[in-house]
Amino acid sequence: MSDVESFLDQRVIDLVNSYITSNANPETKVTHHLPPEKLRSKIDLTLPENGSSLDELYLTIEQYLNFSVRTGHRQFFNQLWSGFTLPGFLGEIIASLANTSMYTYEVAPVATLMEKELIKKLGSICGFKNPEGMFVTGGSNGNLQAMMIARNRALPFVKSHGYKDSPELMAFVSEEAHYSFEKSANILGLGSANLRKIKTDDRGRMIPEELAMAIEQSSQKGKAPFFVGATAGTTVKGAFDPLTEIASIARQHDLWFHVDGSLGGTVVLSARHRHLLRDLVKADSFIWNAHKLMGLPLICSILLIREKGHLLQTNSVTGTDYIFHDEAYGACDLGPMSLQCGRRVDALKLWLSWKYYGDLGYAERVDRFFELAAFAEDIVSRTPSLELMAPRSSVNVCFRYIPNTSEDIDKFNLDLREELARKGKALVNFARLGENVAIRLVIANHELAREDISRFFDYLIQTAESLDR
Amino acid sequence: MSDVESFLDQRVIDLVNSYITSNANPETKVTHHLPPEKLRSKIDLTLPENGSSLDELYLTIEQYLNFSVRTGHRQFFNQLWSGFTLPGFLGEIIASLANTSMYTYEVAPVATLMEKELIKKLGSICGFKNPEGMFVTGGSNGNLQAMMIARNRALPFVKSHGYKDSPELMAFVSEEAHYSFEKSANILGLGSANLRKIKTDDRGRMIPEELAMAIEQSSQKGKAPFFVGATAGTTVKGAFDPLTEIASIARQHDLWFHVDGSLGGTVVLSARHRHLLRDLVKADSFIWNAHKLMGLPLICSILLIREKGHLLQTNSVTGTDYIFHDEAYGACDLGPMSLQCGRRVDALKLWLSWKYYGDLGYAERVDRFFELAAFAEDIVSRTPSLELMAPRSSVNVCFRYIPNTSEDIDKFNLDLREELARKGKALVNFARLGENVAIRLVIANHELAREDISRFFDYLIQTAESLDR
Repeated sequence: MSDVESFLDQRVIDLVNSYITSNANPETKVTHHLPPEKLRSKIDLTLPENGSSLDELYLTIEQYLNFSVRTGHRQFFNQLWSGFTLPGFLGEIIASLANTSMYTYEVAPVATLMEKELIKKLGSICGFKNPEGMFVTGGSNGNLQAMMIARNRALPFVKSHGYKDSPELMAFVSEEAHYSFEKSANILGLGSANLRKIKTDDRGRMIPEELAMAIEQSSQKGKAPFFVGATAGTTVKGAFDPLTEIASIARQHDLWFHVDGSLGGTVVLSARHRHLLRDLVKADSFIWNAHKLMGLPLICSILLIREKGHLLQTNSVTGTDYIFHDEAYGACDLGPMSLQCGRRVDALKLWLSWKYYGDLGYAERVDRFFELAAFAEDIVSRTPSLELMAPRSSVNVCFRYIPNTSEDIDKFNLDLREELARKGKALVNFARLGENVAIRLVIANHELAREDISRFFDYLIQTAESLDR
Repeated sequence: MSDVESFLDQRVIDLVNSYITSNANPETKVTHHLPPEKLRSKIDLTLPENGSSLDELYLTIEQYLNFSVRTGHRQFFNQLWSGFTLPGFLGEIIASLANTSMYTYEVAPVATLMEKELIKKLGSICGFKNPEGMFVTGGSNGNLQAMMIARNRALPFVKSHGYKDSPELMAFVSEEAHYSFEKSANILGLGSANLRKIKTDDRGRMIPEELAMAIEQSSQKGKAPFFVGATAGTTVKGAFDPLTEIASIARQHDLWFHVDGSLGGTVVLSARHRHLLRDLVKADSFIWNAHKLMGLPLICSILLIREKGHLLQTNSVTGTDYIFHDEAYGACDLGPMSLQCGRRVDALKLWLSWKYYGDLGYAERVDRFFELAAFAEDIVSRTPSLELMAPRSSVNVCFRYIPNTSEDIDKFNLDLREELARKGKALVNFARLGENVAIRLVIANHELAREDISRFFDYLIQTAESLDR
């Protein structure tokens, strides 16, 4: 290892900038879409006994970039996130360079203050007067922590003595809620049977009357309802549950009211669309993924709690005095409130990005996403061979192609989607809506313009027509 | 936002390299050690309504780097990790640039294969014949998942129906084990009272006879022992529990045998020191933090399971067909085995770093850490005013200064440590060993040389003498 190998050199900049340039070129393939055997034959992934040179690393790095899916490409619509933003990228570089851990103020002074500032800001946007919060390891983890706070509130002795002799707790989410609620019920020891999935309407929204009925039924069976999780932006349809009605039912039954805004939380930044989250202020907790519609590099998830005190009460344990010292600035330490010990600085990238775009930049971005989604919906409506599969609520557009020649519409659409990927033209995901396969277009890349949406549909229809013979 | 602001420019390289250069200069302060009020007055952390320019971001970035603690400085001994390595840093940059998520092979093809390759490699180093594994969000998270697998093995119905009518489970760790075991007992709904903390010997190792006795006692009380967590490298003393004896007790009582190698896992890479983990091959699960002694940027934690199948069985849920498609390369997807949905690529940085240093480079690094720790221990033994507070087991050296003038030795050592930080000379942590405060020096920075250790003790003794008047 020579001295020069301790420093970044020009190669990184060239590599990064050429990657970004290629992403912007419509001719660049979004994906090579190679099966594992084929990919393995192209990259040597074995690890050596003896070390290698930096030059050899750069070869692998080039292969990594070449064969990875281009999630920053404007024809990448496959997940609930997409795109590249320089401030977020810079934030990751600097956080990694300074490489500290969020547990104590002493070792992460600036990052701790930044995280606190962001929690204050996000809390005030939600209308919470005395909020607390925490950057967590993802939306799933946020849902887990919210459910855990609710559990420990319902059974204060569970922290010290477990479920011994307690009534069976029951949690409620919609049938289109994220699967992490079931993981949470599993982790916490409730059991998946004690997570009731409430019916949704045709837009994918939880039906409040069904929720009220299910709660009553559970109570009659001797179960103890304790938690309701509403979704702001479901994974498939992008639907927003009716928070006002759910909040009122939750209050009536003294349930913890959590809102999973992993996808749709960012919508509160838009004056035009935040009505979708009306009465969010009544939520007891709220999870928000800034790595989705705010375009930050993964992971950037924030759990907000309306009233201070729950995180510490739920998560603090004994045996931590080797790391958390009251002597210093212990009151500022975030670690005791967290389920993690070592924790990355995810706040810096969000802070820098927010500083760069400002409140108004993000509001404008959300509005643009909705406009582009409406534009895509309009193309679907105007095109005879396309069929809208669900009313559009936000940034997700679910549709399918109706072939002339094939009777198996599902298989045709799966093949169509696969063919688009195989050609590297576009990567877009699918889901099952009831019995049918739907292609799910997600508008989440801030660099998208109408021409990118049009190009996607051009590719799709051309490809479909070539298959529909 | 102009076009040029989509690209990295020379400023990043200059900033990064000047930061690295400053870290290497002994005159550079490790920390400014400012209280929150003072730090707040130096950096404006408010977020604007309107956006800002990239130039303004760079001002904050410079302040961030200036006021953050320099964890890559050779006088930073405060945590169980330290230092900077270029291959790991490059890995973070590239992972963030390509920004994908580890849940499906389709969207993370290269990263998925890399993660699998690393699991295979680490599993084979541990001697596991049919291993599985997962990069997780930290050592705490790995301990949680291991305990959860054990719980679901003991109570197969808990996943669907919770703890209903089940016996009270009991888990066992040493009294010097990490606090995350208590967090895990809390999360999983066991209750902290059902985590028994077993006595340790003078080196900080779990006493097997005490473990056997505690298991018997629990069974006699009608509890159901199910899990024992041994520690390979405790947080304060760096002690290694006797795995051979614990494995045998675990087998006898049919307990899940987990090893927390968050700190000491890396020691298996050294032929000279891996005897400390003798019989690791008998562990059912093992957690290893590559962001500690392997020097990767945070977080890089790997959970290894000796036998395939547990992760999927424990963690899989329903309602995931919108993301996990059997149609494609579903069998390659890592997501269903994970507690996360979106997950960062932590494998790339470890892969690149391993490629760069090789097996032998890491073995040599571990040996060097032990030698430097022995060197530090030797200084303590040879210096009349210093006292060794616990026998050294690995890379942690616990000691204190014995003042001439003060009767409150604890307070003196706290003041001494604080004064070193206030001057920015060195950052080193302390812990309580029984009744006494000990300064805990951790050797975890691969750039350390003997002269850095000597310099640390010079600073410490000079500072102590100036206080000891």
